[in-house]
Amino acid sequence: MDPYDYPRHWEADVVLSDGGTVHLRPITPDDADRLLAFHGRLSERTRYFRYFGPYPRMPQRDLERFSTVDHSDRVAFVAMLGHDIVAVGRYDRLHDGESAEVAFVVEDPHQGRGLGSILLEHLAAAARESGLTRFVAEVLAENGQMVRVFRDAGYQIARSFEEGTLHLEFALDPTAQSVAVARSREQAAEARSVRNLLTPRSVALIGASTDHAKIGHAVLTNLLVADFAGPVYPVNPEHRSVRGVRAYASVLDIPDDVDLAVVAIPAAGIEDVLDACLAKGVKALLVVSTVVDRDAERRLVSQARAHGMRVVGPNALGVVNTDPEVRLNATLAPKLPGRGRTGFFCQSGALGIAILATAAERGLGLSTFVSAGNRADVSGNDLLQYWADDPATDVVLLYLESFGNPRKFARLARRLGRHKPIVAVKTGRHAVNPGMAGFAVPVDEASVQSLFEQTGVIRVESLGQLFDTALLLAHQPLPAGPRVAVVGNSNAIGLLAADALLSQGLELAREPVDVGAHAGPEEFAEAVRSTAQCTDVDALVVVFVPPIAMPAAVYAKALREA
Amino acid sequence: MDPYDYPRHWEADVVLSDGGTVHLRPITPDDADRLLAFHGRLSERTRYFRYFGPYPRMPQRDLERFSTVDHSDRVAFVAMLGHDIVAVGRYDRLHDGESAEVAFVVEDPHQGRGLGSILLEHLAAAARESGLTRFVAEVLAENGQMVRVFRDAGYQIARSFEEGTLHLEFALDPTAQSVAVARSREQAAEARSVRNLLTPRSVALIGASTDHAKIGHAVLTNLLVADFAGPVYPVNPEHRSVRGVRAYASVLDIPDDVDLAVVAIPAAGIEDVLDACLAKGVKALLVVSTVVDRDAERRLVSQARAHGMRVVGPNALGVVNTDPEVRLNATLAPKLPGRGRTGFFCQSGALGIAILATAAERGLGLSTFVSAGNRADVSGNDLLQYWADDPATDVVLLYLESFGNPRKFARLARRLGRHKPIVAVKTGRHAVNPGMAGFAVPVDEASVQSLFEQTGVIRVESLGQLFDTALLLAHQPLPAGPRVAVVGNSNAIGLLAADALLSQGLELAREPVDVGAHAGPEEFAEAVRSTAQCTDVDALVVVFVPPIAMPAAVYAKALREA
Repeated sequence: MDPYDYPRHWEADVVLSDGGTVHLRPITPDDADRLLAFHGRLSERTRYFRYFGPYPRMPQRDLERFSTVDHSDRVAFVAMLGHDIVAVGRYDRLHDGESAEVAFVVEDPHQGRGLGSILLEHLAAAARESGLTRFVAEVLAENGQMVRVFRDAGYQIARSFEEGTLHLEFALDPTAQSVAVARSREQAAEARSVRNLLTPRSVALIGASTDHAKIGHAVLTNLLVADFAGPVYPVNPEHRSVRGVRAYASVLDIPDDVDLAVVAIPAAGIEDVLDACLAKGVKALLVVSTVVDRDAERRLVSQARAHGMRVVGPNALGVVNTDPEVRLNATLAPKLPGRGRTGFFCQSGALGIAILATAAERGLGLSTFVSAGNRADVSGNDLLQYWADDPATDVVLLYLESFGNPRKFARLARRLGRHKPIVAVKTGRHAVNPGMAGFAVPVDEASVQSLFEQTGVIRVESLGQLFDTALLLAHQPLPAGPRVAVVGNSNAIGLLAADALLSQGLELAREPVDVGAHAGPEEFAEAVRSTAQCTDVDALVVVFVPPIAMPAAVYAKALREA
Repeated sequence: MDPYDYPRHWEADVVLSDGGTVHLRPITPDDADRLLAFHGRLSERTRYFRYFGPYPRMPQRDLERFSTVDHSDRVAFVAMLGHDIVAVGRYDRLHDGESAEVAFVVEDPHQGRGLGSILLEHLAAAARESGLTRFVAEVLAENGQMVRVFRDAGYQIARSFEEGTLHLEFALDPTAQSVAVARSREQAAEARSVRNLLTPRSVALIGASTDHAKIGHAVLTNLLVADFAGPVYPVNPEHRSVRGVRAYASVLDIPDDVDLAVVAIPAAGIEDVLDACLAKGVKALLVVSTVVDRDAERRLVSQARAHGMRVVGPNALGVVNTDPEVRLNATLAPKLPGRGRTGFFCQSGALGIAILATAAERGLGLSTFVSAGNRADVSGNDLLQYWADDPATDVVLLYLESFGNPRKFARLARRLGRHKPIVAVKTGRHAVNPGMAGFAVPVDEASVQSLFEQTGVIRVESLGQLFDTALLLAHQPLPAGPRVAVVGNSNAIGLLAADALLSQGLELAREPVDVGAHAGPEEFAEAVRSTAQCTDVDALVVVFVPPIAMPAAVYAKALREA
């Protein structure tokens, strides 16, 4: 079999436990030099754990054998960070034809990032495709880290021990537990990755501008006005300072680590900026610039991810974290809502500005906000992973224009929705944005509807409904069940409400209570109080017709206090 | 005569042409080591110009002779910058008893700062006190800089030339020109010094605070919100950044020159801060902190000035420069007026805040603003020097609590007032601020009144009047003469206005014009227009009683357009 010709779907960008990324792919003979260099960088101890002996240099013959595989009986994956191999995992089919011996090695500074587990997961998937049913592994007993990788993978493992070596053996059929382990690992890694993005210790703004009309001025103003908890470093090759803050000609001149770089320069300059950011070791790139060229965008993202960097955008409005320990407003938005417990994700920047302004007006506070623009890398699914275990977020709002990975969305939304309500508007029913075609899986309207229904996402039809629903969820507890009571001062409207809730599949806990058109505030409040205390009532709808004789505010006050 | 016992009034802090300061005093035998070191730092060329030969080392005998003088027949002044001598000037009485030979030498990096002229000026004053009438000097013809010092000093100089040496001789009696030269030099130097303060290229904020209740937070916010044209460097030993801007543990850690350091830390720490600022080469210190200890304040200022640094404060509210190229708001004031052409000086911080807020409300724009607090160094007189040739300032407002140097104030105000109106409120008629006693010359009320009258300062009694007058001066041209016309729609009020202006010594250009109570806006405007066009009218007062039938705004509009 051609050692260069491997199944393309075996290639993947994967997110590690610290939120960084690597690129995973099968080895080819071209990797020989890189493999030799990788071996040379390994510590003695790591080499000993892998080869059970000193093995200081890899002879040419071994090098060729290790880098030339058939992708069927002999499979090897390399984890690439930029141009370097940082981990290798491989298996070799044994004589029984059904089992293979598996082994992997991770470069010392990258140990503890979960690369062993990821290699095992991808090797197991490849092995199942090649008709294998079992993995066996020999691990030195003192290699605790490797033993844990196997133990924690969720398989049923048989072990035996002989002369300091553990012999492990397990069936490759995914078990409920191995699937859960893989998903939990993926969730933790992706959430961590988003958390890195939302809690940078320092921010560089590339294209910070002294010109008030430029986006690079707006973002800097927002970062400073929000009182960001760490330093903001404007990057501008022409000015010594921008808005009173010392500026640097290049991100490489910044005398400090940079966690997040916001890019606000014309598309033509982004490639150079990316190189500088990679050289600087920037962890996340937020591209608010408009990039029209899809190929340039793909190159940008694949290069960034291959070097361990996440990308938000391009065409992003930006990201917000209202955590008082962070105070990050890296957006173009002139108006921002206050702090709250709602997480918000949207795609397009223009709509994002309107949404944030509306949220501010209607008093809906946010925990975190991400407008990912073209979602070339970070997507709504990443945010669902993040919010799943974000203690600052109780309600999730999504404004979606298209789906990148509907299957994963369904899985993540179903799990997240169990604890935190998700409200979504999905636009683009009729319109198709041709620019997004490359990143969006076409999903027809009926499928969208059933996707939302199956996953328990609350679908609304407009921004107005989105905020109505979000405010209700943000300020009212979730009902324990479907039993609804109705109290009001108009029998006609009470019956209308009862009809409406029955048609939505809810239950009427009891006949609607009518306190009568002449009931005073206190009488009305008393009826609400006593109904709310009934144990067979999960939710209470109050309908109210303002009487002519008394201002409605008096009723509102009495009802609020009820 | 005791070589240590010199007339104390010969000591002075002087401002050089670049706005920096040095301390001038007679030499004493203790200066021998410093003199030797100074001589060692001189370039060959400078030594040659002074000693007409190589003279690489100063022998012990010369050293003793040069540093031991009698302060009468032999006088020498040293200019000190910190602990170093940077210039020496001396004269020796000649045998005729009436003339002396004068000579001076300036260390190379300090040449061109006007030290020669200053030494000549102070030596001449000392010589006059000692009964001398003439100076003679021998200068190498090629020493153009020294020749210019003598030529430009304003004396009637006789010269003769022999073998490459110029022999200069002149009477020491001050001439009108020599006085004018000295004052113009002083004005230029003091103005420059204030200009350095008001146009810093970078600002350090010592005591920048993350705590919103601290003044170090307020000043940083104001600097950033004003969009200062250069970098602002927060200094805070505990935080990596303040308000999103990278902070430094000490001013010494700032990787850039610092022109202005704002001090917002408790008084106890200021001495250490001063040492750091002197080591850093900070040009001006703005102390907004409250310092109660007058001795500590004196030590601070004398040390700062001796090292070439100006000090604003302590207890200063701060300084403002609305120049769009500078955009400096280094104050505690929460509300600032916009840009305008009025310069404002005040002492106390608390009043300053009220004044700035009122100026903002009443729409009086400022060019520059300085609240100097205790005026331990920079005073209102410095500002008068600055505004004299500041093209951005047309009107000067002063809010004075006391006078530091009333004689100089009178001289400066008289000169400045010829071109730019000065409006002053002087408080403290009855109250005496004991804390200010050390820095204020007691001036009784009658003297204040005559001081203002003689100098042409417009004295007002209250802040309300100050703003009324300032707004009039800021928005109306100065009348060419005393002839005033009155136009109105009420004869009675017109006559009252005529009476008032006559009692103020103005002239009535003609009988008051009464358009009658029923005149419409257009008729009224026409009367104003035609009166304003008369060539015998220097100023026009319009009096107006709102008629019942028509809103006053319609009249206002018509009159504005007239």
